[in-house]
Parts: sequence; C-alpha cells; structure tokens
Amino acid sequence: MPRLIEYADAPPDVRAVFDDIKATRRVPDVTNFWKALAAHPPTLARTWESLKQVMAPGGALDPLTKEMLYLAASATAGCAYCTASHTAAARAKGMTDAMHGELLAVVGMAAETNRLAEAMRVPVDAPFDE
Amino acid sequence: MPRLIEYADAPPDVRAVFDDIKATRRVPDVTNFWKALAAHPPTLARTWESLKQVMAPGGALDPLTKEMLYLAASATAGCAYCTASHTAAARAKGMTDAMHGELLAVVGMAAETNRLAEAMRVPVDAPFDE
Amino acid sequence: MPRLIEYADAPPDVRAVFDDIKATRRVPDVTNFWKALAAHPPTLARTWESLKQVMAPGGALDPLTKEMLYLAASATAGCAYCTASHTAAARAKGMTDAMHGELLAVVGMAAETNRLAEAMRVPVDAPFDE
Amino acid sequence: MPRLIEYADAPPDVRAVFDDIKATRRVPDVTNFWKALAAHPPTLARTWESLKQVMAPGGALDPLTKEMLYLAASATAGCAYCTASHTAAARAKGMTDAMHGELLAVVGMAAETNRLAEAMRVPVDAPFDE
Amino acid sequence: MPRLIEYADAPPDVRAVFDDIKATRRVPDVTNFWKALAAHPPTLARTWESLKQVMAPGGALDPLTKEMLYLAASATAGCAYCTASHTAAARAKGMTDAMHGELLAVVGMAAETNRLAEAMRVPVDAPFDE
Amino acid sequence: MPRLIEYADAPPDVRAVFDDIKATRRVPDVTNFWKALAAHPPTLARTWESLKQVMAPGGALDPLTKEMLYLAASATAGCAYCTASHTAAARAKGMTDAMHGELLAVVGMAAETNRLAEAMRVPVDAPFDE
Repeated sequence: MPRLIEYADAPPDVRAVFDDIKATRRVPDVTNFWKALAAHPPTLARTWESLKQVMAPGGALDPLTKEMLYLAASATAGCAYCTASHTAAARAKGMTDAMHGELLAVVGMAAETNRLAEAMRVPVDAPFDE
Repeated sequence: MPRLIEYADAPPDVRAVFDDIKATRRVPDVTNFWKALAAHPPTLARTWESLKQVMAPGGALDPLTKEMLYLAASATAGCAYCTASHTAAARAKGMTDAMHGELLAVVGMAAETNRLAEAMRVPVDAPFDE
Repeated sequence: MPRLIEYADAPPDVRAVFDDIKATRRVPDVTNFWKALAAHPPTLARTWESLKQVMAPGGALDPLTKEMLYLAASATAGCAYCTASHTAAARAKGMTDAMHGELLAVVGMAAETNRLAEAMRVPVDAPFDE
Repeated sequence: MPRLIEYADAPPDVRAVFDDIKATRRVPDVTNFWKALAAHPPTLARTWESLKQVMAPGGALDPLTKEMLYLAASATAGCAYCTASHTAAARAKGMTDAMHGELLAVVGMAAETNRLAEAMRVPVDAPFDE
Repeated sequence: MPRLIEYADAPPDVRAVFDDIKATRRVPDVTNFWKALAAHPPTLARTWESLKQVMAPGGALDPLTKEMLYLAASATAGCAYCTASHTAAARAKGMTDAMHGELLAVVGMAAETNRLAEAMRVPVDAPFDE
Repeated sequence: MPRLIEYADAPPDVRAVFDDIKATRRVPDVTNFWKALAAHPPTLARTWESLKQVMAPGGALDPLTKEMLYLAASATAGCAYCTASHTAAARAKGMTDAMHGELLAVVGMAAETNRLAEAMRVPVDAPFDE
C-alpha cells in the first residue's frame, strides 16, 4: 500500500491542492487517491488541474453523463479503486440503481462484442472509415 | 480477415437475424460485424438478442447515453472496429463534435487516473467499500 | 513495420534458430514474427526455446487443446497478429468451423462476465479462496 | 463490495433464475457473481441464459475444454474473481494439476508473444490473412 | 480515420499549441496525434501542457529513460500508433538497436510474469506490502 | 490463493531453482511468486531461466533502467503483485522517490495518450512506418 499523506502532514503546495479539491467538490476531506498522489506534488497538481478541467460543468455533456462515462471507462479498464470511487460519485450526482444496472449491462455487452470483433478481425465498414 | 456472409448467401436462420437487425435499426444492410458472426449462427442469434435487449429504448438511460457508454467502453478496450462503429452510431443518435470531444477527454483522463490508482495500489476509501 | 530478416540475410545464430523452427514445425519458412524477432538474436533464441518447451507434445494437454488455449488468450489480449496466426495453427491441428465458433463464443462470454464481475467487485466465494 | 442478494430475500423473477442455475449445475446455492447480478434482474436473466447456451454440453467442444478456454480468457483478462471461480469449475470437470500447470504456461507464453508481436507491429503473414 | 487538422486550416488557439509543440521539440510539423486532437481544442491544449510538463528535462530521470518508459507502457497497452511514435522518439534520443531489443525483452517477460502472477492470484509478500 | 511451496517441502528440482534464485539475487528466500510457480516445476524452471537471462547485467541497459521498465510494464498491465514486487526491486537498485514519481507520471500520461490515439484511430505518421 502507498503512503497516504494527510492534510496535517502535508507541505504547503500539497495543502493548496487539497484545499482546491475540497472547495471544488464541497467535501470535508480528499480521497485516498489524492493522498497517495501527494507523494509527488507535481503529479498531484497536474492531475488535479487536468481532472478539474475535464469534469468542469458547463460543457456539452452534463456532469452525471460525464461521471457515468468515467465509470464505464474505469470498469472496462478493471480498476477496482476507480470503479468504487466513480460509482459513489455517479450515485451522488443522481445515478439510480436502474441506471447503474443498465450501465453495467452496456459495459458487459461492449466487452463481449469488442472481443468478438477483434477475435474475428472484422474490417471497418466503409461508411465508418471516412 | 474473416469470411463475411452476405444476405444473398445466408441460410434461413441467418437471414432471419439479419432481417430483425435491419427492421430494428431501420437500415438497408447489416454491418460487417454481423456478417462475420454469421459464420456461427448460434452466436449470431444469441449476440443479437442480447444486444437488442441491452440497447432497447424505454429504460432508465436514454439511447444516446447508452451509445456513448458503449463507445467509452469500446475506446477503453482499444477495439478499433467497435470504436469506429459506435462513434458512427452515437453521431446518428445526436452526439455532436463537442460531446464527442468531451467523451474522449473523459476516456483519456480515466485511463490516466486508472493507471495511477492501480500503480500506487490505493486502498478503497472506507465509505465506498460498504 | 519492423524490419523482417530473411534466412538468406541472417547471421549463423539466427539461421540456427530458423532451422530448428522449420524442422520442429515441418514448415518451409518461419513466419513474420520470428523474422522480426531476429533483430535481437538473444530474444529470438530464448523465445523459441521457451515456446518449443511450452507447446511440446507429450504433456497433459493435447496439442490442439493447447493451441486453442493460446488462441483464446491471444483473442482476449486483442493481438491481431497472434489471433490470425494461432487461428491458422489451430485449424492445421484440427479445429473445425464449429469448434472455432464455440471457442469465440466462450471468449466473448468470458469477456462479458469478467467485466461484470470486476465492475461489481464481487468477492471471491469462500470455497474458491482456500 | 456489492450487495449480495440471497435466495431468501430475492423476488420471484430472481428466484426463478437461481433455481435454474442450481438445477442446471446441480449445486445447492449460486455463487456470489449471481447474487451480485441479482441487483438488476434483467441482466441476471439475460447473462444466465447466454452463459447456459454457450456452455451447454453437446457441442463441438467438450465441457472441460470449454471451461479451460474460459479460464484462459479470464486469466488473460486479469479478472481475479473469474480466475478463481473458473479454476474451481475446471477442476470439478477433471482438470488435473498437470493440466492446470500447462494451461498457465500457455497463458503466460501467449502474453509474452502477444506483447512482442504488438510491440514490433509484425504484419500478418499473407497466408493467414486470406 | 479521424479528420487531421493541418496548420494552414487551424484556428488561432490550435495554431498556438502547434507552434509551441514545434518550438519545444524543434520539429517542422506536429505529428498526426496532435492534428487529430485539434478537433477538440481544449483537449489539445490540456494534453500538450500535461505531456510537456511530464517529459520536461531537468527531472530525476533523463529524457531517454523517460522516453523508453513511455515506450514500454505503450507497447504493454498495445497501442500501435504510440508504439511506433515513441520508438521513433526514443531512437532520436539515443536508443540503440541493442537497447531496443532489451527493452522489448523486458516488456515481453513482464507480460508473461504479470499474467502468471495474476492467474495464480499470488499474495503480495509481506515486506512489499508495508 | 495458490498453494505456496516452501523450500523445506520442495522436491529436489524445485530446490535447485530456489537455490539459484537465492544465489543470483543474494536473498535469504524466494518470493511468493516462485513459491506459487513451484506447483508446476517445468514452468518454474523455464520462467526463472528466461527471467535471469532477460535481467542479466552486462547488457545495453543498466539493471536499474531494466527494473524500471519492468515496473512501467507491470503498472500498465495492472498487475498488483508485480507492481508491488518490482517497485521494491527498483528501490533496491536505486530508484528514489523522485524517480518513482516521474515514472508514475510517465505511465499515467502514456495511458491517457494511448487511449486517445486509439479512440481517434490516428494513422501512423509516414516517417514512423518505414
């Protein structure tokens, strides 16, 4: 397990990022992911700035849709931590049990057809390849 | 490349599935994926029935959201055929360039944080693990 | 594309491996995989020795079963070259169209249930975890 | 961890699937995978119907070979739950220690040559690409 | 294939990123990756800023080592484009044929032992888990 | 969990490999990976011989660089055991916290650009494809 750096033990540059995460997300503490990343402050700062920009409200996709896309990608990649944390985040943004069930069904079905398409080496249809 | 079975050369059980795909999707022909799967009719029939059920309208998620989740999963899995075909399908259901750009940004960001979380072996936060 | 080293242009240590591959498999030439690996003779020799040992007849699994397991693993890993070459190798060892169709069905189904099990973070059943 | 739905707490549609799993597999209870899937009854029913069809006896591949292919795919995909459960299932169908050892050797060797083939971007040999 | 946006057709915000890439890398034109990313200018700008920071000289790892790590990660992930472009980049920074051969050997060996460790579900040794 | 075979309980062929691992690495005991592999002595012997050759000193890459490449590949493949053990091995060979942080940053960045390049299906630039 990685060393998790708590706010009380963090240097100023780490605290500044933790403060921004807490203010942006309106949470009392950051999650373990950020406490682990804090071992390398430049990566902590860069990753947070990037994530904040990607997930910012006001874009073409609403926040719940973005969060469910994040969850679908994480579940496909098989990252247990990310699946757990983004399931929680999506629920906090309004994902119901029924929506979660359908999301998982799509992820599972995609995994099956992805493998079949690759295992058969299906050529891309001409209209999709323009 | 796989042998692609055209409607004219297909046996009756394959034609029946092709007919249902064309009617359900209101398209003049099935894509290469189905023509390749037709080499094994039981897998063709089962996969189509399963996909039709998963992507059926009237659920908790709207068709465009499901299609974008399918695309996010396919892009994460690195399936070129599936990425091409589901990008086309999502566009046909209303995905704009801006939505596509944000979807890709989420998929890319998820890939980065997925790897970082796994590479650091971050323990799941207690509240997410209930 | 990698540089492919043909027998006529190969140094003696590469030729010795090519000769052993051709004799063991009773083929007139080695495939592109070995011609590409020949750019680094130690890796060529080590990989062939390892593969020859793993795929040697006389073990607990018959050669066709091993070849189909190799194909299932390659299709799951999404390696197009390996899927193509091991499909050909399995056919040469007796894999029929029906067997190929069932193999693909298992690979596809495994991909779906693998994703679902990981996406739900299902705990291993106690009897399987001893 | 997901909520696991026990038979006693399950609604009728879930119980019907559980009953069919227990009867088909001749087991006293379903595994955690099915108890977790039961949170979304349509996915439970569809996944079981699909799996039952794919793994049904009487096809071109015998049940042990199918189970070992499932295990090879699951091990390649890195799904710990699936690897554990399909190892147990394959052993129940007759996989010996020696067969398991050889299966793992093939899976490991495939992983190595898959990566090498992709890392070198080896072009598919002409005879395999017809 | 994606639409590739050339400098001559690019809007000012895209040109500014292209100019910075060309100046930083001292190249006459950007690669296809950046021309494709330019379809979504915020992702283009964010990705370049992030990559520039990660690959900046003056850190604890020298530029060639970083480039080879990038290549090892890309080859492991099976990204053909990235493998091709980072092989070229590593060669430009001094990777010899012998170094490339050893890098591929490590990537292949890691793939094999990664699969074996996961397929056997080996518990992490106590000293590594502190 | 797999059965772990301790030296005291191992047959002579397994002990011989364990002895060579301990002598080569100058360690008092082998790690769990080898104790698990010992269930299939031919795979134990072959894997160790292969790994010993790949990681042998005296090549074009120094031992620390090879170990970091191994770690980058293992982290990308998402193997928790391998990530833990190769992080320890790289630290033992001189990887500092700063080097580890930069390695993780490269692995994360590669994951993001790998996905973006594949999701956009970027064509390989002509100069890289020779």
